[in-house]
Amino acid sequence: MTAADIPARVEALRAELKRQGFAGFLVPRADEHQGEYVPPHAERLAWLTGFTGSAGLAVVLADAAAIWVDGRYTLQVRDQVPAALFESHHVTQSPPADWLARRLKPGDRLGYDPWLHTIEGVERLRAACARAGAELHPCPANPLDAVWPDRPEPPRAPIVPHDLAYAGRASADKRREIAAALDEARVDAAVLTAPDSIAWLLNVRGGDVRYAPLPLAFAIVHRDADVDLLVDPRKLTPGLAEHLGGGVRVARPADLGPALDRLGAARRKVQVDAAGAAAWIFERLTAAGAQVVRGADPCALPKACKNAAELTGARAAHRKDGAALCRFLAWIAREAPAGRLTEIGAADRLDAFRAEQPLFREPSFPTISGAGPNGAIVHYRATPATDRALGPGMLYLVDSGGQYLDGTSDVTRTVAIGAPTAEQRARFTRVLRGHIALATARFPAGTTGSQLDAFARRALWEAGLDYDHGTGHGVGSYLGVHEGPQRISKVGSTVALKPGMVVSNEPGYYKTGEYGIRIESLVVVTAAGRPAGGELDLLGFETLTLAPIDLALVDPAGLTAEEGAWLDAYHARVRDAITPLVDPETAAWLVGATRPVGR
Amino acid sequence: MTAADIPARVEALRAELKRQGFAGFLVPRADEHQGEYVPPHAERLAWLTGFTGSAGLAVVLADAAAIWVDGRYTLQVRDQVPAALFESHHVTQSPPADWLARRLKPGDRLGYDPWLHTIEGVERLRAACARAGAELHPCPANPLDAVWPDRPEPPRAPIVPHDLAYAGRASADKRREIAAALDEARVDAAVLTAPDSIAWLLNVRGGDVRYAPLPLAFAIVHRDADVDLLVDPRKLTPGLAEHLGGGVRVARPADLGPALDRLGAARRKVQVDAAGAAAWIFERLTAAGAQVVRGADPCALPKACKNAAELTGARAAHRKDGAALCRFLAWIAREAPAGRLTEIGAADRLDAFRAEQPLFREPSFPTISGAGPNGAIVHYRATPATDRALGPGMLYLVDSGGQYLDGTSDVTRTVAIGAPTAEQRARFTRVLRGHIALATARFPAGTTGSQLDAFARRALWEAGLDYDHGTGHGVGSYLGVHEGPQRISKVGSTVALKPGMVVSNEPGYYKTGEYGIRIESLVVVTAAGRPAGGELDLLGFETLTLAPIDLALVDPAGLTAEEGAWLDAYHARVRDAITPLVDPETAAWLVGATRPVGR
Repeated sequence: MTAADIPARVEALRAELKRQGFAGFLVPRADEHQGEYVPPHAERLAWLTGFTGSAGLAVVLADAAAIWVDGRYTLQVRDQVPAALFESHHVTQSPPADWLARRLKPGDRLGYDPWLHTIEGVERLRAACARAGAELHPCPANPLDAVWPDRPEPPRAPIVPHDLAYAGRASADKRREIAAALDEARVDAAVLTAPDSIAWLLNVRGGDVRYAPLPLAFAIVHRDADVDLLVDPRKLTPGLAEHLGGGVRVARPADLGPALDRLGAARRKVQVDAAGAAAWIFERLTAAGAQVVRGADPCALPKACKNAAELTGARAAHRKDGAALCRFLAWIAREAPAGRLTEIGAADRLDAFRAEQPLFREPSFPTISGAGPNGAIVHYRATPATDRALGPGMLYLVDSGGQYLDGTSDVTRTVAIGAPTAEQRARFTRVLRGHIALATARFPAGTTGSQLDAFARRALWEAGLDYDHGTGHGVGSYLGVHEGPQRISKVGSTVALKPGMVVSNEPGYYKTGEYGIRIESLVVVTAAGRPAGGELDLLGFETLTLAPIDLALVDPAGLTAEEGAWLDAYHARVRDAITPLVDPETAAWLVGATRPVGR
Repeated sequence: MTAADIPARVEALRAELKRQGFAGFLVPRADEHQGEYVPPHAERLAWLTGFTGSAGLAVVLADAAAIWVDGRYTLQVRDQVPAALFESHHVTQSPPADWLARRLKPGDRLGYDPWLHTIEGVERLRAACARAGAELHPCPANPLDAVWPDRPEPPRAPIVPHDLAYAGRASADKRREIAAALDEARVDAAVLTAPDSIAWLLNVRGGDVRYAPLPLAFAIVHRDADVDLLVDPRKLTPGLAEHLGGGVRVARPADLGPALDRLGAARRKVQVDAAGAAAWIFERLTAAGAQVVRGADPCALPKACKNAAELTGARAAHRKDGAALCRFLAWIAREAPAGRLTEIGAADRLDAFRAEQPLFREPSFPTISGAGPNGAIVHYRATPATDRALGPGMLYLVDSGGQYLDGTSDVTRTVAIGAPTAEQRARFTRVLRGHIALATARFPAGTTGSQLDAFARRALWEAGLDYDHGTGHGVGSYLGVHEGPQRISKVGSTVALKPGMVVSNEPGYYKTGEYGIRIESLVVVTAAGRPAGGELDLLGFETLTLAPIDLALVDPAGLTAEEGAWLDAYHARVRDAITPLVDPETAAWLVGATRPVGR
């Protein structure tokens, strides 16, 4: 598609809305599972507006339209979406609710697809409509789908068992644990709509979206530990039924509604995640007479706390991933100064290095390969039109990751091509201080990521700098590279960090139009013991990622002795782990790249 | 009263509940204004249970009773409340909702007084009752009052003007600002139930409770800036009507209901603070047909952001307060080692030093004077039964403050009597490092206190230590020593710190049965400018409190060079400001008490 298609698409949608009697329609970047990566047939926001980021919302009214994105995408949205058709706004600084309250007229009916919004989202939008005297109303059929002529088919990638050696725990055991939690909460069943929860619970993996081995499906877990799995039967591979075992009944996705109706008819108490499940599920259950209890997806927390086998796998995957990244960084160090590499060429080379690693399956997200000013676009994706040559005087930011059968990686390194400026070194050093402050944090049980977030920002704040994104997101085990419920962010959270949770540590700094800096490693929450004479058992972080931090960008005088010692110890660990896994040329580069800073 | 009275009181309440047909009754430590200090006639929790802390909740059922307190009061509640009659629980670790859900039986009616709970509180408790199949029900008349024979009369202290020189802004200007905010929010009126908001808005002060110059009253602010003030007319002093001016209509408290009914009859949109106003207000407005909008008390935020005159007053008040405290600390240094001082005697002496200061009115809370193990009781109040002699080898913790016409103070210092142990010095030094980390924080606009809280804890966490209370509370300007909406705490908050907000900085450490440490100074949020080359205007803190931190408890080797420099600079400031205000003996002591640590 090109930008030229957009006006006709908006026009067609407006005509359809008029036909259906709606004043407007909400187009979120979402599918029925509220996943981050959505299959092509659900890329409605991109089809309508051109915006390809991973989060956004558009509203189309008869005479106005707008799109909202978060701080990661404020630059990208201006590049991709025609400003003549869509106003673009920052989702928290100028929220859609205010715009709707201002633009809607009393009596207007604003339409939404109840499969594409959570119930909490619907409630917020409904309140915004009410402020204008307008009404939020579910559309009986998605009006955008009606005007999307060549809309792709839903995917049906095969579902395969996930080996117990990697999963670390039998599905039957997990199902019993979840059932016990439902029993404890006096709930009869829980509806699962998150494919990663279903994959985790049943020890299966699929391939319906790119970048994560997810089987698009729904499930109902009952208090007796039995599970209804609602999935296109064409995705089931031979032998899968035996793998699933007798406690898992398989039915078609179209049977979800009747299954919910049966829970309602039996007046069951059913737990649904108000922040994750489609509003459709709530509405159907409620209409059927069920007692709907809002509660978190019961798999989210146990999935987030990796078991010993998963952590062994994560460490192994990160050694391989570090070897691939070190080969790449050594190659960049050799080749980039000549000015012949481009962002896309570099990203392809990195993907190729990763692809050679054992158990590698696919990238865990599209590689962000940003040279110079493109590095300042937080979720930049190089295209032929933007593809920039790497050359002396630039910072190069590369954020990438891999899906391995034994684990998922996500790492960002920023390197100087040629000599960096004093400002670049000073700011990189502050980002590094934040990264170290978080990596070395020790904290008691019950501490949330939001309590720790400012550790990663303090050194930047002191210089009047900051970054407009979270500091850390959860990461799955051969599942989504972004997973909840833990995170490290300014936004308040009530989810405590627990042993086994994997989370990213990724402070950054971005100078629009000039350069971007981010230092991202994955860390796992570990028991850090009780200090001598202390009263509390502490938690801390073990850094999983193994790749050098560019010393050309570090100003040793800007580090404390403790920070310098952390950097030296980390680099020694990288060198020891990676040297045996790489070619002699990379190993030689590694010696210099991991030299002590002598602070 | 004595502990011996309690069984008969509980018995009488149970008989009355039975008579009224209730399975149980909720007794919060609250009055109709949800204030921290309540008048004697509202001290129902103390009358019933013996517990005199500033926050708590009891439930009395026919065959069980319990009391919940927060971490400040877990030791005190065990001392004061007969365990045979009341189980005692930590309010967050073992919440009342769980206990109620377990103890109530289906069909039970649990009673509450709708004047003594917020609507949010009622909703939480109602949900807890529902879990047990029981019902929360307002009592037509408070059953405890029916069995409290000698219940005191409500207070009626005179209400007096608060001089513009201290208030800094005319009441008419404040009323116009609040009216504009209501207009912006498209609300017709707001009900004020917090006496400090009413005092701030009308530039008046009262004296209905101890420790803060509060006039117990209600008010309704209208969109046209007119105010209805509902107050006992016997409290009005001559000339007050002129001070209030034509925009303020005075009526009796009994007229509140009819005034709310009129708003309802006119179908007005009325803003009420769901976390601060009595549920009674909501219920009356809703029954009358008003459109009730939940929103914060509109005075809370502007009151929290002190104007220039209030800050000038705060600085002046803190110089006087520092002088009184330094005279006291010098006296302690001379007298305590002999072992003849006791906690109560010391507190009396401190109160006397403060009382000599110009514009002093009363203490801002009961002085906490805790020697040795009593210092570990976070909100300890010495009684003749617990009064301990100060002597060598003890830490002595003194937390006190004053109400001055020009400002409110709150300060804690911990001093060693004789030589402290290595452990005491190490832990004090960690508390100090947290205090300094917060005092020196620089942060961008939009940052909340909960984002900064961990700065004050990190040094303790690293040693496996922590403290079970918040790090900072807001402080009023010749108003409550505790005020919102700002605070610095583990609990997530969406209220950003803004210039002019006064907040305490009070990390601590408590070793039950041995000693307590707390270092508390008040700080004001100030504009800290934009660092050279930075991109953001920063905020920071200016420390208002002026009193030495006991150097006998500081291990200079445990401080970084920057921390040592902060301590030396702070002590130089204390010495320069306080020396001219004190007697030669105190001035001589101050020289040693503020000597550089030479780190």
